[in-house]
Amino acid sequence: MALFVQKYGGTSVGNTERIRRVAQRVIETQRAGHGVVVVVSAMSGVTDGLIKLAREVAPDPPERELDVLLATGEQTTIALLAMALHAAGARAVSLTGAQAGIVTDGVHTKAKIANITPKQVHRLLDDGAVVIVAGFQGQTMEGQITTLGRGGSDLTAIALAAAVNADLCQIFTDVDGVYTCDPRLVPDARKLDEISYEEMLEMASSGSKVMQSRSVEFAKKFGVRFEVRNSFNNNPGTMIVEETPSMESVVIRGISVEKNQAKVTVAGVPDRPGTAAAIFNALAEAHLVIDMIVQNVSAHGATDVSFTLNKDDLARAQATLEPVVARIGAAGMSAQDGIAKLSVVGIGMRSHSGIAAKLFDCLGQGGINIQMISTSEIKIAVVLDESRLAEATQRTHAYFGLNEGAYTV
Amino acid sequence: MALFVQKYGGTSVGNTERIRRVAQRVIETQRAGHGVVVVVSAMSGVTDGLIKLAREVAPDPPERELDVLLATGEQTTIALLAMALHAAGARAVSLTGAQAGIVTDGVHTKAKIANITPKQVHRLLDDGAVVIVAGFQGQTMEGQITTLGRGGSDLTAIALAAAVNADLCQIFTDVDGVYTCDPRLVPDARKLDEISYEEMLEMASSGSKVMQSRSVEFAKKFGVRFEVRNSFNNNPGTMIVEETPSMESVVIRGISVEKNQAKVTVAGVPDRPGTAAAIFNALAEAHLVIDMIVQNVSAHGATDVSFTLNKDDLARAQATLEPVVARIGAAGMSAQDGIAKLSVVGIGMRSHSGIAAKLFDCLGQGGINIQMISTSEIKIAVVLDESRLAEATQRTHAYFGLNEGAYTV
Repeated sequence: MALFVQKYGGTSVGNTERIRRVAQRVIETQRAGHGVVVVVSAMSGVTDGLIKLAREVAPDPPERELDVLLATGEQTTIALLAMALHAAGARAVSLTGAQAGIVTDGVHTKAKIANITPKQVHRLLDDGAVVIVAGFQGQTMEGQITTLGRGGSDLTAIALAAAVNADLCQIFTDVDGVYTCDPRLVPDARKLDEISYEEMLEMASSGSKVMQSRSVEFAKKFGVRFEVRNSFNNNPGTMIVEETPSMESVVIRGISVEKNQAKVTVAGVPDRPGTAAAIFNALAEAHLVIDMIVQNVSAHGATDVSFTLNKDDLARAQATLEPVVARIGAAGMSAQDGIAKLSVVGIGMRSHSGIAAKLFDCLGQGGINIQMISTSEIKIAVVLDESRLAEATQRTHAYFGLNEGAYTV
Repeated sequence: MALFVQKYGGTSVGNTERIRRVAQRVIETQRAGHGVVVVVSAMSGVTDGLIKLAREVAPDPPERELDVLLATGEQTTIALLAMALHAAGARAVSLTGAQAGIVTDGVHTKAKIANITPKQVHRLLDDGAVVIVAGFQGQTMEGQITTLGRGGSDLTAIALAAAVNADLCQIFTDVDGVYTCDPRLVPDARKLDEISYEEMLEMASSGSKVMQSRSVEFAKKFGVRFEVRNSFNNNPGTMIVEETPSMESVVIRGISVEKNQAKVTVAGVPDRPGTAAAIFNALAEAHLVIDMIVQNVSAHGATDVSFTLNKDDLARAQATLEPVVARIGAAGMSAQDGIAKLSVVGIGMRSHSGIAAKLFDCLGQGGINIQMISTSEIKIAVVLDESRLAEATQRTHAYFGLNEGAYTV
């Protein structure tokens, strides 16, 4: 008998008929002789509806109360799923985050899990019940209701899988798994059978939004094997696993893209300690999330500092930096939106050089201009004109033969 | 500084605009220098919507999960009201039933309050915050979510008022208070300024459904003064108070009616011990709620036993009694629906006789036939043909001059 944690997202439990279908899938797992803990999100649309209500009563609702409000979404789903399982003849008991022993810090709307005491979960599993836990929520030591922020239900599932020492955590969603590239951009993108935590992290942080990075990081830290798969069919999904020696030969696993980017260049930044800090501290204090940062060697005692960010934040970033540019004595600031980021990701890059040159060659052959370059151990990212993104992605996908398999050497 | 518990029902918090209006009223009370604990119901329609969802996934949902589901309704309202108060500049903190220390027994969907430990409530009041508590819900000693059944939010308010020793509990609803009679039946019905617990209980149990009897009983037991008033205007409401000596002169306070009744007569019941018990035990085991029971003196060793009940339960009652009638050797059973009950209520009836005769006279003058009669210490109830109910009520209301004031002697 194995122990499974299954997580179903908002679309998978989007209406009562889908909840009944999820119940069937859970029962199949149980009838195969396994223990099942189910983590569910709010039904799709419910959280947005609650936020709309909140905005109607208060322009800037206090975050503590937002958590009390939003937590009702998942609580509704756990009760309905428990009822559906009951109606289908299975014993099932629902638990709120608090009841499941999920203790968080007190940072409302984006709390971190401090620890999990899954006493109730174990007791109910021992009793032969399916245990249904509300994702996305917990409570503080003092009994305050908290929510975990974006991707919170995935995190609940991964963390619970670690806490109960599950054999496998299955993340059910509305796609078949993780692809070599976004199939909307590259029609012959291929579903990956497996991917390492590190690669998944780079894919996630580069725009492949199957899962938030924080859940993948948590899984990596606690060695939780998990699978991303489709709740609407029985296709095998993608296993996210610890890196194995054989993975080293995988130079490029996939391509990740991020649209709606903008770049800002602060020109002629005096070449002395503290100037870069002045720029990025100001941005951080304005809660602006910066992605790539590029600074080249200086010439004539000054250098240019560029960074990218979501284009929706561009105006705010410019307003924030205006006084900083003057204070540090930089020459000026320029900005541009309409750009996108393309990243190639693969563990084998660690030990194989020359991939960057191949990527630049591939794009150059297509007459696609590269505006910025940034690399990590297992990733090469380039910034391009957004209008050329689809073409660049298809070209790169084909160049490295990703529709056939991973690019290996 | 006084301490108020204010309870707002589903209609009063029926949409976000109304929630903002409730926030204003709460703030006025606070600005007048008072401490305020607010108890709210689910927004009108929400509970029904949740029950509909439940029925879609399970024909007979387990009651434990029904409680988990329904409790989200009030949790939504407390968060929204706290936000609205915050937006209007007041400090407010929401508490679920569990957080407010409301401990119940484990009878799901109709739990009884076992005790209240209002530690959090006191701490927040001392801090100057408005405390908003989810009505209708609590938790067991073991941390299971429970709900209190019909009228549960009123009960939460009354019980909290007792636990925090409030100066007054205000039940805000969509009517101005308790009337001498249902204004839809008697257009010149008069709102009562005050009424005793006992009278309120008789009015409630006789069909004036401003509040459930259980809340009134709780208030009486713990001496909680409460007021029923309208959340949509500033009219003074009705105070429900301990009986005072001066109330003894009030012979008739009001008239209560109950429609949709049916009566069953078991004829020729052998006059020996245990036959009545056989009848009513069978009905109780079938969970049928019986109202009036009438048995006259026996003649020729047998008697007729009649009772009334809601007409929706009539078929089930007949089916239940069929075998009992045979077993006890009764002559037969007859049933009739299309009847209604009219009750006159007043404390002064205890010490003043002749009221029954006056009521029969009044109805007799109108040619209205009385089918059954039942009396308590402070009430006389008669069963009539439902088609004559409006006429009978108007006639009685006028006969005793209730539009002018209480009928005193």
